[in-house]
Amino acid sequence: MKRIGVLTSGGDAPGMNACLRAIVLTAHANEIEVIGFQHGFNGVIEQQYQTLLPYHVSGIIQDGGTLLKSARCQAMHTTEGLQRVADNLHDLDIDGLLVIGGDGSFRGTIELAPYYKGKLLGIPGTIDNDVDGSDFTIGFATALDTALDAIDKIRDTADAFERIFIVEVMGRHTGYLAVAAGIAAGAEQIICPELASELDLDKITAHVEQARKHRGNCSYIIVMAETMYQGGASALAAALEQRGIESRASVLGHIQRGGSPVGADRILATKLGAFAVEQLIHGAHLMMAGEINAKAGLYPLAHTGDKKKQVDSYLLRWQQQIAQY
Amino acid sequence: MKRIGVLTSGGDAPGMNACLRAIVLTAHANEIEVIGFQHGFNGVIEQQYQTLLPYHVSGIIQDGGTLLKSARCQAMHTTEGLQRVADNLHDLDIDGLLVIGGDGSFRGTIELAPYYKGKLLGIPGTIDNDVDGSDFTIGFATALDTALDAIDKIRDTADAFERIFIVEVMGRHTGYLAVAAGIAAGAEQIICPELASELDLDKITAHVEQARKHRGNCSYIIVMAETMYQGGASALAAALEQRGIESRASVLGHIQRGGSPVGADRILATKLGAFAVEQLIHGAHLMMAGEINAKAGLYPLAHTGDKKKQVDSYLLRWQQQIAQY
Amino acid sequence: MKRIGVLTSGGDAPGMNACLRAIVLTAHANEIEVIGFQHGFNGVIEQQYQTLLPYHVSGIIQDGGTLLKSARCQAMHTTEGLQRVADNLHDLDIDGLLVIGGDGSFRGTIELAPYYKGKLLGIPGTIDNDVDGSDFTIGFATALDTALDAIDKIRDTADAFERIFIVEVMGRHTGYLAVAAGIAAGAEQIICPELASELDLDKITAHVEQARKHRGNCSYIIVMAETMYQGGASALAAALEQRGIESRASVLGHIQRGGSPVGADRILATKLGAFAVEQLIHGAHLMMAGEINAKAGLYPLAHTGDKKKQVDSYLLRWQQQIAQY
Amino acid sequence: MKRIGVLTSGGDAPGMNACLRAIVLTAHANEIEVIGFQHGFNGVIEQQYQTLLPYHVSGIIQDGGTLLKSARCQAMHTTEGLQRVADNLHDLDIDGLLVIGGDGSFRGTIELAPYYKGKLLGIPGTIDNDVDGSDFTIGFATALDTALDAIDKIRDTADAFERIFIVEVMGRHTGYLAVAAGIAAGAEQIICPELASELDLDKITAHVEQARKHRGNCSYIIVMAETMYQGGASALAAALEQRGIESRASVLGHIQRGGSPVGADRILATKLGAFAVEQLIHGAHLMMAGEINAKAGLYPLAHTGDKKKQVDSYLLRWQQQIAQY
Repeated sequence: MKRIGVLTSGGDAPGMNACLRAIVLTAHANEIEVIGFQHGFNGVIEQQYQTLLPYHVSGIIQDGGTLLKSARCQAMHTTEGLQRVADNLHDLDIDGLLVIGGDGSFRGTIELAPYYKGKLLGIPGTIDNDVDGSDFTIGFATALDTALDAIDKIRDTADAFERIFIVEVMGRHTGYLAVAAGIAAGAEQIICPELASELDLDKITAHVEQARKHRGNCSYIIVMAETMYQGGASALAAALEQRGIESRASVLGHIQRGGSPVGADRILATKLGAFAVEQLIHGAHLMMAGEINAKAGLYPLAHTGDKKKQVDSYLLRWQQQIAQY
Repeated sequence: MKRIGVLTSGGDAPGMNACLRAIVLTAHANEIEVIGFQHGFNGVIEQQYQTLLPYHVSGIIQDGGTLLKSARCQAMHTTEGLQRVADNLHDLDIDGLLVIGGDGSFRGTIELAPYYKGKLLGIPGTIDNDVDGSDFTIGFATALDTALDAIDKIRDTADAFERIFIVEVMGRHTGYLAVAAGIAAGAEQIICPELASELDLDKITAHVEQARKHRGNCSYIIVMAETMYQGGASALAAALEQRGIESRASVLGHIQRGGSPVGADRILATKLGAFAVEQLIHGAHLMMAGEINAKAGLYPLAHTGDKKKQVDSYLLRWQQQIAQY
Repeated sequence: MKRIGVLTSGGDAPGMNACLRAIVLTAHANEIEVIGFQHGFNGVIEQQYQTLLPYHVSGIIQDGGTLLKSARCQAMHTTEGLQRVADNLHDLDIDGLLVIGGDGSFRGTIELAPYYKGKLLGIPGTIDNDVDGSDFTIGFATALDTALDAIDKIRDTADAFERIFIVEVMGRHTGYLAVAAGIAAGAEQIICPELASELDLDKITAHVEQARKHRGNCSYIIVMAETMYQGGASALAAALEQRGIESRASVLGHIQRGGSPVGADRILATKLGAFAVEQLIHGAHLMMAGEINAKAGLYPLAHTGDKKKQVDSYLLRWQQQIAQY
Repeated sequence: MKRIGVLTSGGDAPGMNACLRAIVLTAHANEIEVIGFQHGFNGVIEQQYQTLLPYHVSGIIQDGGTLLKSARCQAMHTTEGLQRVADNLHDLDIDGLLVIGGDGSFRGTIELAPYYKGKLLGIPGTIDNDVDGSDFTIGFATALDTALDAIDKIRDTADAFERIFIVEVMGRHTGYLAVAAGIAAGAEQIICPELASELDLDKITAHVEQARKHRGNCSYIIVMAETMYQGGASALAAALEQRGIESRASVLGHIQRGGSPVGADRILATKLGAFAVEQLIHGAHLMMAGEINAKAGLYPLAHTGDKKKQVDSYLLRWQQQIAQY
């Protein structure tokens, strides 16, 4: 293995730069050249790339975003696009390609396999933490603390006005972020797909009323995963208001993707980046480099989207039990 | 002067607790009792109050929100309400009342004067910084850094995707926060009432296109004061998209009101709280304790809403000149 | 089980309050009264305590420090002291005692067992992460991010002056914090007991020189556990200077113990607090409530100090390999 | 004016990069080329420089440190060194030089004047805020919040143990940072050159004892400027302990220089950078671009070290009066 490629794909996540740094430094130590493609797979198609040397990644361990930039790539859904990607990788003598991204990027990577002669390896980078084969994805820990910091601030105002707030966090098909942020913020209610496929206005209302019976007027925070209500937090606030429950909505939005990665993400990103290069050298193919029980390991790319990973149901049940007091 | 009252009114602002602490400690040193009313003027009407002693305010200098809670008070718009407030203050032998809040709270305070025999003093506490008679209001510096922290995070994603973001910040009738956050974030465009009374889609579009001509694809951030476009940042993003300019919206919302106050706010709050008690002792009435050119001073409450204070036009013009490069 | 006691002991750690909250809310849901003792075991001896109700712990999930205050307790090393603690617990009809602390506090708890008829359970709360039976201790994740934030700031100055800095972090007999902070900060060198029992000046000097050969002048950060050099970081800086290597020392000190807990610590503290109460109800005794592989579980208190837990040697070796580039 | 030079000199300060950005963008808008010298004046001597274009400064407004790196320069104290600097500036056709730094750098700049034919302008960049002619220096506001964040964390531990802490902050000959951080942290005692030229152990002891009489056991924080006691905070802690007052020392050190600049520093840096270029164009020479009462203005470089600027004595007196309660 003489030359490998790397790209970041899909929604950016804090720690992607730390991962790129680990990849470049590990490859360098193993005398392997690293080609970084820009804008995800688009950079392979458009031949936008650069050789990454240690000094390019010096000092980026703490930077949010991704120096390779990211993008979704429509062409990866077509035969022509996949062929083009493979051709360009072959032309550049890329022996293996590392794809840092989430579930969607991994599906594209699997699609590429029949066309490409080299090795393909995924590294889980997404704030959603919805990838099977790794306890945590790069970016989740930072997004949690960003969401938490925002909810703590909202709690100040909620306390001052003894008001109900609905805080909408990211996580399209999954409630990892909502559950973790809700538990950690001491939220009175958490609404996520794992608890119920549909949102029940009666239950929400009943819980608010019960809490106010127990505690008198007080702040009350609902943390909601982004797709749980048509129209989002604002629409839910309006619906509750029709039932006589005044509330405010706050959509945290894209701030959750940015920022300097926290320690846990930098360490995970470093570990998976170094491990992925080593495994590529050892011939791994169509696998994802993940971490389970604090140990780096390989997991078939084909199963990263199986959705077997569960949110912490112990804490979810506990939170429902105690949140009224 | 034996006993004074204090309340926090209107939107909460970081530093209100630091101000309460300074008031209680200064009054204590002058052997004056402090009665804290809860929920703004509602606490006077509903007789919800407590004596505030030094140990109540120990360790609150760094807390967001307000321990007295806040609220707007409808009754202050009626003769009966004002009379009730005055009666209750008289019954409690309150010789002077300190109102920490913004322009709306000060107007209510002025209305109260004909009914109340004691002294009335305002202290500017609002993140909007839209009060004449003080260079800065308590809470503005913290809100700026909160907004900035959010915009810096959004910049990470904007850079990764070379995308346009419209970030909506608070400030109902004024652009202080938008201008300061926009300058400090290096925003490519700032939209605020001080620049133009109405938003001009042609100008916005032209500026984006010019920037992209100069710099190629790149991130581009528009910071917008909250009332500048019907429907807010999301509606503006939709309107730009119709003109072929893809963009994302982010509404920072209530996170801007919360959080531990930064140093500048704690110092300002401490200074104005201490100064206000001293001036109350010296007989000040219907004045606001503000700070101009780093010096505490009194300003007529009746003129705090004159809207003569200006955003920094030097920097605004500079930003327009250079933002395209 | 009608009434349980709780105390925080030894060095305070971020998340202790979150843990107290979970304990009180879980006990309340199970109709168990909670007595909180102040200043660790001293509060049992001096009979300084209070009943903790849900409203006492409302809103403390995000607070650093511990509302019960903490202390070391000399009397726990004497027969009289232990007897006194047991007597006072019996007098108060305390059926079980929860001790939140580190290794030293757990040893005291074991000593207490022969005197006390109730159940004894430990919860690991210390920033050192040096407790067997739990992957992480409450407070470690926050201390890591606090140390990291400081080292990132030091990196700015180190870069500006192309200077060597020696940063001393906490961890008396263990390098968890040094290793994690060093990896996450991209430190050029990590000095901790797990790597070598004694510090080797020749090796340190050689590594610095090698790095400068590879990279030219540049910043270079050494993260050191606190007991690795007689006299600390300042003495090490002086010793290096004698060998012609100019460097600056920075001792992070007590800032590492404080601050609002990060999400990971709040979640861990909540989980272990709730779990500990449940296990106390089910009769657990002389055990520690810890978390291994993301699952709460019991571990014998007698073995929490076995020092079998290892720092991540994979990353430590990797860091040594790549840090020169 | 066709080409100007810029350098950062002396201790680095957050906001130096924001200032460089403003200088480059303003010069670009005025069709002036900017040469950036590295390592302060050393870069002029060693001919280490680069042309700075808008894209070099894109996205650096939020970065700590300085992209031009900084250093002190011994050669500036010699005739040969000054002549060399002037010669190299002449050789490069530099029509004016902007020096971002503190008092020491400005003295060097004045020394350079007799040798150099171009214009010389200073911009105050130092966390010490000890420069006459500007209310604030670039970096002070950030250093204040960094110190404050650290002291808030120390307060958590101090509260948990009801302990005395001595926190040493930067500021070699001046107490701006100590006074601001002490006031904003609600410190019980502030020790700085402005209050007393020498530290009085009797007074310190008396104040501690008085506070404990009023408040019982509690945390107690002393904020001390770095040069106020031989041996620093640790030596002072030892001296107090000899008088029976147990205390802990914490030296904040170099973390105070780093970090992303807060909003106030970014805005000040942007304003002064833009203003300095405009004034250079208009012929200003041997002046400093500062800000007084929120307005940019020029001040003779020769008087920037006059030490007429005062710390806020109103708040200092107030703090002494109330800190015992």
